[in-house]
Amino acid sequence: MSTAALPRAQHDKLANAIRTLAMDAVEKAKSGHPGMPMGTADIATVLFSRFLKFDAANPTWPDRDRFVLSAGHGSMLVYALLYLTGAPEMTLDEIKNFRQLGSKTPGHPENFITKGVETTTGPLGQGIATAVGMALAEKMLAAEFGKKAVDHYTYVIASDGDLMEGISQEAIAMAGHWKLNKLIVLFDDNDISIDGPLSIADSVDQVKRFQAAGWRAERVDGHDPEAIAAAIERAQKSGKPSLIACKTVIGYGAPKKAGTSKAHGEPLGADELKAAKEKLGISPEPFSIAPDVLDAWRKIGARGAAARKTWESLFGTLPPKKQAEFNRRLAHERPAKLAKALAAHKKALIANPQHIATRKSSELAIEAIVPAMPEFLAGSADLTGSNNTKAKSAVAFSAKTPKGRYIHYGIREHGMAAAMNGIALHGGFAPNGATFLVFTDYCRPAMRLSALMGTGVVYVMTHDSIGLGEDGPTHQPVEHVAALRAMPNMRVFRPCDAIEVAECWELALNRTDGPTTLALTRQNLPQLRTEVKANRSAAGAYELMKAEGGKAQVTLFATGSEVEVAVGARKLLADKGIVARVVSVPSLDLFLEQSAEIRETVIGDAPVKVAIEAGVRMGWDAVIGNDGIFVGMTGFGASAPYKELYKHFGITPEATAEAVLARIG
Amino acid sequence: MSTAALPRAQHDKLANAIRTLAMDAVEKAKSGHPGMPMGTADIATVLFSRFLKFDAANPTWPDRDRFVLSAGHGSMLVYALLYLTGAPEMTLDEIKNFRQLGSKTPGHPENFITKGVETTTGPLGQGIATAVGMALAEKMLAAEFGKKAVDHYTYVIASDGDLMEGISQEAIAMAGHWKLNKLIVLFDDNDISIDGPLSIADSVDQVKRFQAAGWRAERVDGHDPEAIAAAIERAQKSGKPSLIACKTVIGYGAPKKAGTSKAHGEPLGADELKAAKEKLGISPEPFSIAPDVLDAWRKIGARGAAARKTWESLFGTLPPKKQAEFNRRLAHERPAKLAKALAAHKKALIANPQHIATRKSSELAIEAIVPAMPEFLAGSADLTGSNNTKAKSAVAFSAKTPKGRYIHYGIREHGMAAAMNGIALHGGFAPNGATFLVFTDYCRPAMRLSALMGTGVVYVMTHDSIGLGEDGPTHQPVEHVAALRAMPNMRVFRPCDAIEVAECWELALNRTDGPTTLALTRQNLPQLRTEVKANRSAAGAYELMKAEGGKAQVTLFATGSEVEVAVGARKLLADKGIVARVVSVPSLDLFLEQSAEIRETVIGDAPVKVAIEAGVRMGWDAVIGNDGIFVGMTGFGASAPYKELYKHFGITPEATAEAVLARIG
Repeated sequence: MSTAALPRAQHDKLANAIRTLAMDAVEKAKSGHPGMPMGTADIATVLFSRFLKFDAANPTWPDRDRFVLSAGHGSMLVYALLYLTGAPEMTLDEIKNFRQLGSKTPGHPENFITKGVETTTGPLGQGIATAVGMALAEKMLAAEFGKKAVDHYTYVIASDGDLMEGISQEAIAMAGHWKLNKLIVLFDDNDISIDGPLSIADSVDQVKRFQAAGWRAERVDGHDPEAIAAAIERAQKSGKPSLIACKTVIGYGAPKKAGTSKAHGEPLGADELKAAKEKLGISPEPFSIAPDVLDAWRKIGARGAAARKTWESLFGTLPPKKQAEFNRRLAHERPAKLAKALAAHKKALIANPQHIATRKSSELAIEAIVPAMPEFLAGSADLTGSNNTKAKSAVAFSAKTPKGRYIHYGIREHGMAAAMNGIALHGGFAPNGATFLVFTDYCRPAMRLSALMGTGVVYVMTHDSIGLGEDGPTHQPVEHVAALRAMPNMRVFRPCDAIEVAECWELALNRTDGPTTLALTRQNLPQLRTEVKANRSAAGAYELMKAEGGKAQVTLFATGSEVEVAVGARKLLADKGIVARVVSVPSLDLFLEQSAEIRETVIGDAPVKVAIEAGVRMGWDAVIGNDGIFVGMTGFGASAPYKELYKHFGITPEATAEAVLARIG
Repeated sequence: MSTAALPRAQHDKLANAIRTLAMDAVEKAKSGHPGMPMGTADIATVLFSRFLKFDAANPTWPDRDRFVLSAGHGSMLVYALLYLTGAPEMTLDEIKNFRQLGSKTPGHPENFITKGVETTTGPLGQGIATAVGMALAEKMLAAEFGKKAVDHYTYVIASDGDLMEGISQEAIAMAGHWKLNKLIVLFDDNDISIDGPLSIADSVDQVKRFQAAGWRAERVDGHDPEAIAAAIERAQKSGKPSLIACKTVIGYGAPKKAGTSKAHGEPLGADELKAAKEKLGISPEPFSIAPDVLDAWRKIGARGAAARKTWESLFGTLPPKKQAEFNRRLAHERPAKLAKALAAHKKALIANPQHIATRKSSELAIEAIVPAMPEFLAGSADLTGSNNTKAKSAVAFSAKTPKGRYIHYGIREHGMAAAMNGIALHGGFAPNGATFLVFTDYCRPAMRLSALMGTGVVYVMTHDSIGLGEDGPTHQPVEHVAALRAMPNMRVFRPCDAIEVAECWELALNRTDGPTTLALTRQNLPQLRTEVKANRSAAGAYELMKAEGGKAQVTLFATGSEVEVAVGARKLLADKGIVARVVSVPSLDLFLEQSAEIRETVIGDAPVKVAIEAGVRMGWDAVIGNDGIFVGMTGFGASAPYKELYKHFGITPEATAEAVLARIG
């Protein structure tokens, strides 16, 4: 989509409207980043006035172009654009309330606060990597539903900081490899970072770097509307993702601060603001937009209504079943047959118990899910055979096989996580991706955004303890389960057998308001569950084995592979005449969210409480009290066959029983 | 350093000795990665036989070339080289005990287990980024002490996986910018990843990419000794860091598995192993190295003794004071005047209390430290003015100012953290680097290696809570303090005022067996401490304000900015006739490591225990019990001025006192 060029004077007026709102809002808030929106106002004006397919009144229309402000600190750029183009909720009062409690204009763009913001940005590099996921989802969805349903661009404005972050390399390598030709990145190439001129810390030739990753890349004057527009047109026609490095002046228009780091992260100050407005020919009145300028912007905001209607007509020609399926997928609704498929799978497990690693149990669950859930989109960061995430029927996605529904993300855990956020935000797919649990450390900034935004991403994290054995402490998670439980809105499951794995997958796939981590073993585990009447993992914890032969003296809480240890300890204790019950805790965080009544019932009143988990104690005192017995790790692991490690670190039925006996005396 | 070429037949014998040990050790362990050492045996043989300046008998000689196996899964490469060259502790029995408990040959190379291993690798990308820090330290130390003291190369063998990881981009951008010309990366360019041919996930032109980052880069045949040697010679002469992409065949020599992902991560199997040995002309006997081959390798290992002696002579010509200072620095010993400088600083604070943000208090401490501690090497990931890490006297390091002792790392938190590990491992500097606390998520894999290796890196993490205000939830750490406390051997300090900041800096700088995180505020705080007789932060927690007017009914535990809240609550409670004491907890993890006696004394027996921290509760139950009152966060923050946020989230003296009153009834 491209419309005619604006007369230069008109372009300048429109761009300066963005600048005035950015300057004034930051000034009023006494906080924020004026320089970025001032510097990129010309780029944004060209993009929005001539290219971006959007309908301001309908910010969630499925086939809109996606616009991602990766340089999220320049949030006033997007808020100004939303207000100017007439987004329903973005009033001038909201602009005046920039960065205030309860406003639609928080410090960084938050998609869960502000309609029209496609993704939450601010942590640098996340926006561009998330946009790669959006462009990937577009390509896959177009391949499946056709161009009548999906045919849009994904545009990104990115900063030096975005491109310095390592995740940007993972993202651009994926985009180049997948030939995501509808991804266009406009680089705010202003040669300024917070510490001063970019030259004090960087000398990368970005154009050459992007070319090395398979992108089309060129450099233009970021204050020349025609040059920007021509470059976007060339980008649209190329068969590759495109970088347009736009040479800009940060704080464009500010007489003293423009082109310096002074324009970056603080208000201009009254004098400089006044002088900037004079220089730009803007009214000195705060937040003042001339009626003709606002009118012109509002027309731009309404322009896309026609494109939306055209799309609606085209989409309406698709078979009704296809339309319904598309709508279901975009609405993140799960197909009815998913529940049935998982119920049948669980029943089959009861009939034929599986004594296998939970990563293998997960593979069985995936085999059951895939035929029932076409939006299921698995992948791995180059550990497919170890993570067991690829269904036999799954075909790998590639530029040549866009209908493939398995993603080889390469050794790019962080890029994978961010791309999954983009896929989930775009809609149409339920992404899940895998690596070793220890490498959640590499994914963490993007996992946090999953949690903050509430995307329903599933992280399939295998090799979840010292149970991975010989690879040693660099690969053995010890603190990771605790560290993920600490993250608000991140659901962490560590299932103990094939049944719990199926239950946790079910809960994860039906969770659409936040991400889930599945922590799975490398090593084999027995199937402990003998019934599947209800999804017992749904409350986070439940009594797996009750007190027998009297009132419980001991409750053994355990997760994942250590539930087997608890069961073993229970037996050893029984041999000594001590009555113990076992509580399986597939999700400690979910359990702690239950009502006090449920928690008290499950925890029970046995005087000795023991938690067994091959990780650190942190978090368990909430269940067992600070006088409870913890059987787990107190430091890093070691390299050896896993059974030896469990003995070495004292995570065994014997060590557990001993600790209990020592307490009971 | 370069010696004459070996006759090709001799080269092959030496390289095949590496291959046989790698194949046999993995086969015996039934676990490991044979393909990488088999594929890189030729590269390693050229490097060790002709270039690497090392003395096998003296693995810690200061001016040795550093050799980093970034592709740590190929650990048998380095173990084979250590054994063959005659490293004292690396016996054939150790090789035979590959990946077994207590061996010197763990699954991935661990520098704290195996002498001669320069850094712990395995998590991909860490090795190359750590090596950048080593090369940086070399350049800085050479600038300060001269080439008689320091004049060595840093060599890296890196894999596709290392280069796909985002951290590699941060690392190579820094190395290129700093013109680290003595850093030479040999890329094991084998076109294979775990999931299959590299082409399923990657198409980056690595040579072009490195050139874009300011490197010299070329591609050679990785099985042609002369081509490899010639490329290393060209690299040594270039004024830039160098990438030598060596085209190799993974599992070189294995008739069926060579060149496939089957050779990567599992034993070859008896038949393939036998066939490989036949093909390579190696004895079928396991672990068999012909005496002449071992003898040739041992001569290579002894060759560097001459270079070491030459260095000793040259170093001996330096003024004794300079020698002593160099030796002190390399031994990680702190200068005597450091303690004096900090004592004077604390005394000055008592005389002139500072009501400032702890990031500003940290700046004051740094100003006191810098003149007393020449090895103090501060830096920031482009937040210098916000992190307050640059002393007024500090000059920025650059290729042109190698004596500069402040590092502008750019917007590369992860690269910064890994480089600091390399600097610390190299020796000569005490690195500390800064960003916002929330971005520890970006650093986490390298921080974990700091903790695992026990490097004395200091992470200066400012803007440590919702107290950062308007930047909003993407920038507000909520779970990060807990997540860092969960990491074994990571010390986390959250000081409450300028005195505690000075104490925590002192503890951090004197900690040489592990890393420290300092969590510091953006917002101003009162100076609460009124005496500095002892370093009270040293036990992690202490009674700041005792019970007055009776026995304590309440103990208020708090950290950092919330100690002020506790003090305020104590006063409100006193007004209601309730006696409360305040315990400041600058380090919860350090406190929990104290003896039971110390812990019990500090915790005391007041019936109501309250913890106040603007983060999640996780971890606090260990102090306050699971029935304790926690005043803090239960989810993500919001964007607003910080005082409003504290009210909004109920982290105030009033809310605390109310919660106590509700409990006491």
